[in-house]
Amino acid sequence: MEGNLYHVLGAKQFSRSELDELFEASRKMEEVVRYGGSRDHQGRIMTTLFFEASTRTRLSFESAMSRLGGSVIGTENAAQFSSAIKGETLEDTIRIVSGYSDVVVMRHTDIGAAKRAAAVASVPVINAGDGAGEHPTQALLDAYTIQKEVGKLDGVRIAMVGDLAYGRTVHSLSYMLANYKDVVIYYISPDNVQIPKSVKRYMDEKGVRYVETADLDAVAGEIDVLYQTRIQKERFPSLEEYEKASGKYIVDERLMSLMRKEAIVMHPLPRAGEIAEAVDRDPRAAYFRQAQNGLYIRMALVDKCLKSIGF
Amino acid sequence: MEGNLYHVLGAKQFSRSELDELFEASRKMEEVVRYGGSRDHQGRIMTTLFFEASTRTRLSFESAMSRLGGSVIGTENAAQFSSAIKGETLEDTIRIVSGYSDVVVMRHTDIGAAKRAAAVASVPVINAGDGAGEHPTQALLDAYTIQKEVGKLDGVRIAMVGDLAYGRTVHSLSYMLANYKDVVIYYISPDNVQIPKSVKRYMDEKGVRYVETADLDAVAGEIDVLYQTRIQKERFPSLEEYEKASGKYIVDERLMSLMRKEAIVMHPLPRAGEIAEAVDRDPRAAYFRQAQNGLYIRMALVDKCLKSIGF
Amino acid sequence: MEGNLYHVLGAKQFSRSELDELFEASRKMEEVVRYGGSRDHQGRIMTTLFFEASTRTRLSFESAMSRLGGSVIGTENAAQFSSAIKGETLEDTIRIVSGYSDVVVMRHTDIGAAKRAAAVASVPVINAGDGAGEHPTQALLDAYTIQKEVGKLDGVRIAMVGDLAYGRTVHSLSYMLANYKDVVIYYISPDNVQIPKSVKRYMDEKGVRYVETADLDAVAGEIDVLYQTRIQKERFPSLEEYEKASGKYIVDERLMSLMRKEAIVMHPLPRAGEIAEAVDRDPRAAYFRQAQNGLYIRMALVDKCLKSIGF
Repeated sequence: MEGNLYHVLGAKQFSRSELDELFEASRKMEEVVRYGGSRDHQGRIMTTLFFEASTRTRLSFESAMSRLGGSVIGTENAAQFSSAIKGETLEDTIRIVSGYSDVVVMRHTDIGAAKRAAAVASVPVINAGDGAGEHPTQALLDAYTIQKEVGKLDGVRIAMVGDLAYGRTVHSLSYMLANYKDVVIYYISPDNVQIPKSVKRYMDEKGVRYVETADLDAVAGEIDVLYQTRIQKERFPSLEEYEKASGKYIVDERLMSLMRKEAIVMHPLPRAGEIAEAVDRDPRAAYFRQAQNGLYIRMALVDKCLKSIGF
Repeated sequence: MEGNLYHVLGAKQFSRSELDELFEASRKMEEVVRYGGSRDHQGRIMTTLFFEASTRTRLSFESAMSRLGGSVIGTENAAQFSSAIKGETLEDTIRIVSGYSDVVVMRHTDIGAAKRAAAVASVPVINAGDGAGEHPTQALLDAYTIQKEVGKLDGVRIAMVGDLAYGRTVHSLSYMLANYKDVVIYYISPDNVQIPKSVKRYMDEKGVRYVETADLDAVAGEIDVLYQTRIQKERFPSLEEYEKASGKYIVDERLMSLMRKEAIVMHPLPRAGEIAEAVDRDPRAAYFRQAQNGLYIRMALVDKCLKSIGF
Repeated sequence: MEGNLYHVLGAKQFSRSELDELFEASRKMEEVVRYGGSRDHQGRIMTTLFFEASTRTRLSFESAMSRLGGSVIGTENAAQFSSAIKGETLEDTIRIVSGYSDVVVMRHTDIGAAKRAAAVASVPVINAGDGAGEHPTQALLDAYTIQKEVGKLDGVRIAMVGDLAYGRTVHSLSYMLANYKDVVIYYISPDNVQIPKSVKRYMDEKGVRYVETADLDAVAGEIDVLYQTRIQKERFPSLEEYEKASGKYIVDERLMSLMRKEAIVMHPLPRAGEIAEAVDRDPRAAYFRQAQNGLYIRMALVDKCLKSIGF
């Protein structure tokens, strides 16, 4: 609608220089929070429109807006807009709701929903997950965490572990890492949930080195980052096969002993057994710091969106 | 409870001079929003108490309060107050909740609920819809839209189209238009959902001219405003009869070609097929601007309510 | 986690001098509200995490935070965190969510949940009810109401009436009153819902005088406070026995005529028939003022929590 609005729709929209700028802005946001938040966006309003529940992500965005001095309105039940009774199109909902606020954060069940919303919105739209599609702010906070904890993205060696077929976070993070030099990705998964061809094709085009393997132990000593994800029962033909597959990749004290002492463990959370609680005490356990980084990344993104509308 | 509290309960409470004043205040609110909102009501609190879901209306009120600098607390699930387990009367809920805030915006399933709430509240109450009863802020934003878009309310010629029996917005708008001179209303509906006798009796008492007809095409060239509404399947004995009836009143490019070039099309939204999407591109399509006007009207009303409590 | 965080977890954590200080702070909060709220905690964020619905309590906390100038984020549906699908531990939820805000207000279904949360949170935790466990802010507002209305807690004579077996408010209030001198408690209940032995043992240890009886009329003229509670149908073997039992303890005009003219009637609300509406007009009906006191107590507690984190 409006030419210069800054939307956040997918992981591939970010160039390396934009990422550099965003990570620098996020670093500054850490200081803003440490000193009690800013009043820069007092009077501005964020609408959170969640067509499916994702309380953690929603609270992270609402906290980001509050830390910037703005207000939040929203709903945990946006699905009722398009319910059988009301039967409204997503476009009509967005046309109206975007008139009530200065930025819309949207979670939807359908791939491409955020892009459709941005096409008709009168304010910036941030994609907080569109079904099996994208979840770009997760990929950004993941990359930011690596930058912060490992000290670099160029040359990073990362193992992505678990369900690589359906886990959209590993896809988006792969796309984002393709911006950097000399990255090596180990895709480590059970046979039935391997990384999709479409992701490998993109990595090939961008010249990113990757290795597919089922053997986590063998690479544990090589990597800077172990990116653990959840394996869902329903992907497997039987509970027995699920337990056999998932059991192979549990991050516990034994596995930690194989890793370098500068390496870190990440996880998009929530976890459900694939990282033992004993690992929490290891300083290399970076997953709670990673979740916290989501706040700073989202503050930086919301700030950029709000500046794009001007007043 | 308190003598001088300003409540918003029904469409008939507004005199012509109050409407003039309210529309002027709403016009000023458009400027307030354009320049980034006000801080006039910083520290004030709105409670939104929705006993039935109406996210669009709720967000509109919450945006209004935020644009005025105030805070919002509330619930999308107020029905639990009066649930079988808790079994509390509406009066008790309001007595307590009104002590937490400076204005209560309430949506309820029962006719007269807002009036009962106002009788015991210690702060102003705004009726955001009480069942088949009233929805006065919708009627106000409708009248404000006509004033703004057509340039007048005296002498306006309006066709109200669709389900006129159960659609409470056309009833409330009719009552409101009875404040103005030389208004002509065309009530255009299928036979089984005609405008009720009670509304016609009120129009007769107030000396408002109206015409009942089933023929939209015949009046399309005469009118300043086409006020379209939804026709609900469940009012008709069969799907066939429903489709026959609703199909007659679809606003599409053909119908637009019959209308005057200064006329406008309004709709309380959400729509579900009764206005073709192609019409959106026609500058006479006023329904999204109408929804936006809801924000300004509600800001003006909330401002007036908050000023009535004093400090 | 952090040594000096001030958590609100249970009624027994408060010494007499802390209560004195808290009640004085609450009294000052009444003035803060009267003069339009404060901006002391502008920029601070409260997260309300309700694993079970309790809208009245949640709104009271959110109002308290807003009156102090702070912002609120939260969810009415926290139960989804620990749902079968997400399967997250309470500790993981708290570790993450406490990074988004400056104070967490939590309602949970499990005894001890607030204590578990406080053990891992990076910010103060306030227990807004943990199942059959504690609801300390209710006990505090009850004690504050007695102090304010009766003018003293030392020497107060209070009848607790109704379901004394399952009603956690009477247990917590009993523990709190044990801090004061010469208190007399009349425990008045049907036979099958008498005050538990564990509470009586605590009262014995602390040297508090109490009397168990089924005869409300006999003590009505002796007491400063009648603390009425609800009797739930499901505790009784038959509807007939329930009606017989609950009917005996209805507070109505007849009972009020037996009470001293300086005495007051309290109730944690919601009520469901156990106080007749006619009693509302009696100036001794203190239950709505009591609910309002919850705001001031919660403001004082939130203020103390926020000051404990420092910046």
